[in-house]
Amino acid sequence: MSRLPNLFYAQSGGMTAVINATAAGVVQTARLHRDRIGRVYAGENGIMGALQENLLDLSRESEAAIRDLRHTPGGAFGSSRFALGTPASHPHHYARIIDVFRTHNIRWFLYNGGGGSAGTCLHVANAARAAGYPLSVIHLPKTVDNDMVHTDFSPGFGSVAKYTAISTREAALDVVSMCRTSTQVFVMEVMGRHAGWIAAASGLAQEGGAGAPHIILFPEVAFDQEKFLAAVQKAVAADGFCVVVTAEGLAVNNPDVGEHVLMPADHGKDLLNVHTGKAAPYIAALVERRLKLRCHFAVSDYLQRSARHIASAVDVDAAWRVGEAAVTMALAGEDRVMASLLRNDGRKAQWKIVPVPLEKVVGKEVCLPRRFIRRDGFGITEACREYLQPLIVGEDYPPYRNGLPCIAKLKCIRVGKKLPLLCLV
Amino acid sequence: MSRLPNLFYAQSGGMTAVINATAAGVVQTARLHRDRIGRVYAGENGIMGALQENLLDLSRESEAAIRDLRHTPGGAFGSSRFALGTPASHPHHYARIIDVFRTHNIRWFLYNGGGGSAGTCLHVANAARAAGYPLSVIHLPKTVDNDMVHTDFSPGFGSVAKYTAISTREAALDVVSMCRTSTQVFVMEVMGRHAGWIAAASGLAQEGGAGAPHIILFPEVAFDQEKFLAAVQKAVAADGFCVVVTAEGLAVNNPDVGEHVLMPADHGKDLLNVHTGKAAPYIAALVERRLKLRCHFAVSDYLQRSARHIASAVDVDAAWRVGEAAVTMALAGEDRVMASLLRNDGRKAQWKIVPVPLEKVVGKEVCLPRRFIRRDGFGITEACREYLQPLIVGEDYPPYRNGLPCIAKLKCIRVGKKLPLLCLV
Repeated sequence: MSRLPNLFYAQSGGMTAVINATAAGVVQTARLHRDRIGRVYAGENGIMGALQENLLDLSRESEAAIRDLRHTPGGAFGSSRFALGTPASHPHHYARIIDVFRTHNIRWFLYNGGGGSAGTCLHVANAARAAGYPLSVIHLPKTVDNDMVHTDFSPGFGSVAKYTAISTREAALDVVSMCRTSTQVFVMEVMGRHAGWIAAASGLAQEGGAGAPHIILFPEVAFDQEKFLAAVQKAVAADGFCVVVTAEGLAVNNPDVGEHVLMPADHGKDLLNVHTGKAAPYIAALVERRLKLRCHFAVSDYLQRSARHIASAVDVDAAWRVGEAAVTMALAGEDRVMASLLRNDGRKAQWKIVPVPLEKVVGKEVCLPRRFIRRDGFGITEACREYLQPLIVGEDYPPYRNGLPCIAKLKCIRVGKKLPLLCLV
Repeated sequence: MSRLPNLFYAQSGGMTAVINATAAGVVQTARLHRDRIGRVYAGENGIMGALQENLLDLSRESEAAIRDLRHTPGGAFGSSRFALGTPASHPHHYARIIDVFRTHNIRWFLYNGGGGSAGTCLHVANAARAAGYPLSVIHLPKTVDNDMVHTDFSPGFGSVAKYTAISTREAALDVVSMCRTSTQVFVMEVMGRHAGWIAAASGLAQEGGAGAPHIILFPEVAFDQEKFLAAVQKAVAADGFCVVVTAEGLAVNNPDVGEHVLMPADHGKDLLNVHTGKAAPYIAALVERRLKLRCHFAVSDYLQRSARHIASAVDVDAAWRVGEAAVTMALAGEDRVMASLLRNDGRKAQWKIVPVPLEKVVGKEVCLPRRFIRRDGFGITEACREYLQPLIVGEDYPPYRNGLPCIAKLKCIRVGKKLPLLCLV
């Protein structure tokens, strides 16, 4: 076995259509540096792989398998929502991770996730420093929610934005052709508990600032039932139909609705029991009951964030390049940074990837700014459109076999364990 | 204006991703026969266009606009669920249609729809015959439900089948990567009140007859709650997760569920008030309550039948060719027939389009045959797979601009009215 130091990569939190493109960027770039990087390991089920010493040896995967990761949705090595706690509350977790890293000569920790995983990066870096273990920690942004600070966007968001805009346009064409004798109001629920970025992307389906979606409901805007119903009536009167896109985190404070049925606007609340798939039926039932209009609703749930078949080429490219840049940063001695996307100011949107100190990122999330929300609260502004539009450009189609997209076939060979088993409670 | 006889085309019932491809086939073929066909009119909002004398003159649309119809979902001229009744119950409707046809020298009636519109074709043909008005009536099949008899499949079904199989595969990759610490059961609801064809198509996502979808719930199979829950537990034990695809028409006869909440197996019941979006939440809540497993659900609703962005190339081609064939049949003097897809028996599936007498089609619908349903009732057989597989082959991508699919821009110019207004009650 090589005596060169090894690199550990793990995926965290909810999946996206393009997180595996980042994994491909990491592995393919690391393979260009065989003189400096020994083996590339992935954590099986994210950070749990480090805790449980379940390391997958990506060095044993074929070039073809790694290449195919670029067009495979989901998380190829498994992800995790396991709560690691802080070094203060759960010192044994961090001691164990350092132990596993030391045992397997892992000197680079590349962690691919959202805001929470950026915090984990910092905790692990601190634990390594306290233990005197030399470790370079790089965070690779990923989240469909697009709520991370200090990056122009988060890979994964561009593709869900494209899916949402396309689905809105397509469904609207269906509804408008049936509205005289059938459904008049169509409600689509998209992800976004606190931040309305995905809902906002549906606004790209409009042409000339009019038509579907007629109404977007953001978590950032308190839901005003009467104002909403009036807007539905106005759209139906004008166009004959109304398309509503609502974030799952509808900011309703209505005791009739019941606890946890809809997202309260209160961001501090424990949200673990809150479900997707509540906002759209609620809105549809409200419209039917109050306006006597015929409604349909869709809940796209995981379909939206796994829709690799219609991923944004810009997003796929950004995801891959974040993986590439993270390895380059690691080799350049960067530590405690996020590989952040910085947009240029030119006519054609382009991004370079720069290191941003993790301290600037951790513990913050960015909602839709007020200047991106139309004055009436039910749509996006031109400024929002200018921000979103470049993220959905280009189609990066996967290869197909027998009418279905091909997915990466990995061997997922586990590295031999050298430590006692850890029992996670 | 040309003195040649004119052709009238109308769309009926629920939309598909490819019904406009049929319209393109009709118009483009008719334009090859300018020596015999005067103008091509479309009914605005389907058959209501004939009743209300709202005729759109497609002869005034550009070649580009008609070509773009091929990749535009929804119904370009509007569709209708208006109930025309029978010549016995509503003779004035049929008299009016013949009046409009006679006034505008319409000698060919091409009606694009499902089983109900085939019945309308026959009624109109009978009314014309009774009135001594020479009219050739051709039915062009279309339905995502695939429940029409005497055609190998109905255009529209191939694309929703492809969408469903792809979505199932993609979402499964998301769920499997999260199942250790997050969602274990994912439920997707697809269309199909009486017939489980769309639900069955999800079975194509499986590889080697295993994996997701672990369970398919068909309207044709009475829902056995305990057997279902045992199957979920078995899948989770084996794979760590379980993907369930349910038809909206879940065959539950459970008084606790409430009337109209889920589809009863009773096909005779009035279904107008039955909603999509009930089956998936019901199943998800059942699994959470009884098995204490974390669930997510999606309701794809109109997204599935308007997803032109991932239409099946076989389906688009069939849809277009049905339009072409219907015009050819009309010119050949065919009457009271459906342009039916007949599959060859060769190794490579191919279809020719043949006229089938409407009498054979009307009043019948075909559910999933028992030999297509796995013995345990929760999956599809190899015979079903062999039938479905060729229908989803090939990707027929629309052109894109700024990251969004381009849609046909029609002028939709109305023909001048010559008759008194009709007030529809």
